[in-house]
Amino acid sequence: MNRERVLSGMQASGKLHLGNLVGALKNWVDLQDKYDCFYFVADWHALTTGYANPASIKENTNDLLINFIAAGLNPDKSTIFIQSMVPQHAELHLLLSMITPIGWLERVPTYKEKQEQLKDRDLSTYGFLGYPVLQTADIIIYRAKFVPVGIDQFPHLEISREIARRFNYLYKEVFPEPEGLLTEFPKVLGLDGRKMSKSYDNAIYLSDSPEIVEQKIRTMMTDPARKRRTDKGEPELSPVYHLHKIFSSKEELDEIAHGCKTAGIGCIDCKKILIKNVFAYMEPIWKKRNELISNPDSVLEIAQKGSEKAGKVAEETMKLVRDAMGLPCMM
Amino acid sequence: MNRERVLSGMQASGKLHLGNLVGALKNWVDLQDKYDCFYFVADWHALTTGYANPASIKENTNDLLINFIAAGLNPDKSTIFIQSMVPQHAELHLLLSMITPIGWLERVPTYKEKQEQLKDRDLSTYGFLGYPVLQTADIIIYRAKFVPVGIDQFPHLEISREIARRFNYLYKEVFPEPEGLLTEFPKVLGLDGRKMSKSYDNAIYLSDSPEIVEQKIRTMMTDPARKRRTDKGEPELSPVYHLHKIFSSKEELDEIAHGCKTAGIGCIDCKKILIKNVFAYMEPIWKKRNELISNPDSVLEIAQKGSEKAGKVAEETMKLVRDAMGLPCMM
Repeated sequence: MNRERVLSGMQASGKLHLGNLVGALKNWVDLQDKYDCFYFVADWHALTTGYANPASIKENTNDLLINFIAAGLNPDKSTIFIQSMVPQHAELHLLLSMITPIGWLERVPTYKEKQEQLKDRDLSTYGFLGYPVLQTADIIIYRAKFVPVGIDQFPHLEISREIARRFNYLYKEVFPEPEGLLTEFPKVLGLDGRKMSKSYDNAIYLSDSPEIVEQKIRTMMTDPARKRRTDKGEPELSPVYHLHKIFSSKEELDEIAHGCKTAGIGCIDCKKILIKNVFAYMEPIWKKRNELISNPDSVLEIAQKGSEKAGKVAEETMKLVRDAMGLPCMM
Repeated sequence: MNRERVLSGMQASGKLHLGNLVGALKNWVDLQDKYDCFYFVADWHALTTGYANPASIKENTNDLLINFIAAGLNPDKSTIFIQSMVPQHAELHLLLSMITPIGWLERVPTYKEKQEQLKDRDLSTYGFLGYPVLQTADIIIYRAKFVPVGIDQFPHLEISREIARRFNYLYKEVFPEPEGLLTEFPKVLGLDGRKMSKSYDNAIYLSDSPEIVEQKIRTMMTDPARKRRTDKGEPELSPVYHLHKIFSSKEELDEIAHGCKTAGIGCIDCKKILIKNVFAYMEPIWKKRNELISNPDSVLEIAQKGSEKAGKVAEETMKLVRDAMGLPCMM
């Protein structure tokens, strides 16, 4: 049972949508059988951009945890926990802050990008600048070997590798440098044809009821050039077809592509097939979500047990860290 | 026993000298009877400027704690503890980092000053910038009413008041805004007539042996214009006379001033009187220091008990803080 350790987290800053589910979360589920996985809800991280509204963080944390389990994360296989329930992350964050050059943080590409994207929020805080330091603490406190990442998260991981290396160089070899486990996620388009994203308001959420999902798909964009039923369409120009690629069988997909190009199938029928297949995909998840929502104690118990288990590993690492740095000084 | 709470700490970044003793530390001793005092060794703070050499921090922490007790801090009256033994400080530091604008930190006058003073060290770290955030956490985690400060520390306290106010405004009234307890410390001159300071290498340390103290005083600067025994001197121009003001009686002081001005007393005899008086002042402290050095377990026990007591108060505050912010989200 000496499997390599994988660590990943999601920020509790909004509801999960289908893009998150078929991308990151299903990948997490797949990794459970091969690795010793630690998965967490990053509620402290959500404060970096949402400190003014912590009530929503609480709600999102709860919802995220429900989604983790409903999507197939198994507390018997993986350690599922909440960041703020393992206070050792904060201690390591503080110690790493002492050795992290400000320049490294200012050069993380997402630092400026996010400030430009979220102009309605105050992101000029010390904590927002230190986001990568906390993220590094999250990862290396479990001495994780791998972090599943999308290609756009590589810069964040690179700074974690640099901070770990600097610690090892200054004090003692405590941390493995975490490696990215690059996964090709299918890119999920939203209702308007852009990337599915909660900031574009074009997403289908895991918390959407079947009725809402049906309605969202029924009214979603198709090939804009196909104005009438008798017009021939180009499936690649329709976001509906892109969702079919994810949720429909190879046979259905071929049939739909052909039907669209020849005007053999209309958009309404095409969407009906997608609705059927999304429902089939989502039904076990909806069922599990409803079970968990009606039994909040079971969710709490999973979070508590997982956080306790994570806390033990984190405390072991902190003992090595304190020893390497000679802190606390009287021990 | 509902005394108002006082909080103060010293950074474990060097040996204590007479200036620290008759200034801050003796003041701490005096406050013990009137207030509920929390005094701590700031070993994490020492990392902001000394992260590359934590071994010296360990040594300094131990020495500082010995000096605290030798100078008269009484563990039965005051809570004496070590910062890194109360990890709640790190948690509050992280949470406060989320609400602290970077601009506030960059504007703290000592930020630029220290960077200019300590050119041989790397002070461009995230942790050095965040020094006032950690200092704020140190203070307000005990919901202290007063912080004894010298006039030059007021800007640091002002930012702590601002951060506390911001927390109270954003979430819930948890923290009193800490007030400065301004104390007029006698300014202690060093061996060369400048302010006594370890950076000027002109200090008499609490860890100096009587022989070293005697030698340092015997060779210290006097009125430079008084070249021969028969020259008349101006006592105010001699740093020896300034030390007499602190350690000698009113009668001796008058006698020495008169003797100097009339060439009635030579510098050698003047210094002998000072040596006698410094010895008398220091002897109980030296004695206590030696006792503590030969019994390190007793020091450890004081630090452990104090840190435990501090930790209980800190945890009570953190419960209020987490509750105010709705963290951890599953509780």
